[in-house]
Amino acid sequence: MLSISRQALQRLPLYLNYLKSLPPGTVNISATAIAQALGQGDVQVRKDLAAVSDRGRPKVGYDTHGLIRDIEEFLGYDNVDTAVIVGAGNLGRALLCYDGFSTYGLDIVAAFDADYTRQGVLENGKQIFPVSRLGELCERMKVKIGIITVPAAAAQKVCDTMIEAGVLAVWNFSPVRLTVPAGVLVQDENMAVSLAVLSQHLAEKLRESEEDAV
Amino acid sequence: MLSISRQALQRLPLYLNYLKSLPPGTVNISATAIAQALGQGDVQVRKDLAAVSDRGRPKVGYDTHGLIRDIEEFLGYDNVDTAVIVGAGNLGRALLCYDGFSTYGLDIVAAFDADYTRQGVLENGKQIFPVSRLGELCERMKVKIGIITVPAAAAQKVCDTMIEAGVLAVWNFSPVRLTVPAGVLVQDENMAVSLAVLSQHLAEKLRESEEDAV
Repeated sequence: MLSISRQALQRLPLYLNYLKSLPPGTVNISATAIAQALGQGDVQVRKDLAAVSDRGRPKVGYDTHGLIRDIEEFLGYDNVDTAVIVGAGNLGRALLCYDGFSTYGLDIVAAFDADYTRQGVLENGKQIFPVSRLGELCERMKVKIGIITVPAAAAQKVCDTMIEAGVLAVWNFSPVRLTVPAGVLVQDENMAVSLAVLSQHLAEKLRESEEDAV
Repeated sequence: MLSISRQALQRLPLYLNYLKSLPPGTVNISATAIAQALGQGDVQVRKDLAAVSDRGRPKVGYDTHGLIRDIEEFLGYDNVDTAVIVGAGNLGRALLCYDGFSTYGLDIVAAFDADYTRQGVLENGKQIFPVSRLGELCERMKVKIGIITVPAAAAQKVCDTMIEAGVLAVWNFSPVRLTVPAGVLVQDENMAVSLAVLSQHLAEKLRESEEDAV
């Protein structure tokens, strides 16, 4: 398996999404067609695909279904990973109830919260446990992915407990930079960062239109 | 106002979060202290802060509250921006109900959905309208931020309607690369991309441990 950059890795789900949106009769697809459809560079797409699949044929392109399988296999979507969420507020519960993650090989089996009024069984049968049981249950269920949706002040402690219990990848929705040992990956989903980008763009547009009005 | 890179812009919310977590009596704070607390480079923090605030004094550092105000002003958090959500599934409703966005100057005033069973008034008083009224209501309420949480196939059309109605910044949770005119910003929040990164990390760790076992 060739190694792949993080940037290339992040483009693979886009390709996958596009390939899956093609009409069922699309037997073959070229890197050029994918590049054009997604507004990406031809060379880049060609290189990204070559890193994950050896099905490319000159003038023919890729066998569409084979390419889908190769990307999914590379991304590990064919192995279902078990995950838990800590923090069962609005966002945590939304993620717990969202049924689209199975497409990505992710099965969120349970949530944890310190607030006992949130504990119990949800409509979809998934359970919210006391956070005091986090370590024990992660170990027992061999959970490898931990999702953090707690407030900033609690995030590092939750992260430490998860990792002690064997978690290898953390999906972090709290606005904190987490410290983790080597070999553990943190993927930050920082909404505050996104909002900063949006908000600053608007502030700038506003200043521009005020200057235009002068 | 100095210009600032997107990378620097994305670090500002981290600084802000840290500054707000300091004990109330922290009158002054140095760039070095911030850098150490967040594991960032000293020079970088110094440069980032200088771009948004001129309160820095040699050997004293920054007046903490003044620095918080300067960052918030730069990010436009002191102007409340009105936003709407299109797509009132689990994620859309979670965002609509989340009360933490006001901290970032974002007020999500309403949601829209094509499914009439989702339309109506929520517990918190916010309303979910038919998506057919999106353009009209965005114009009337002078909405400048649009949040997209619809399935992939519907996203571009929703985006076009928003922009026609005056939206200048789009927060996109759908797994689609949106096409927008110059002057409009798209901030992608692509969960599929994050999941790809997490999943591939685990697949790699799994392969490593299998190789070790051989």
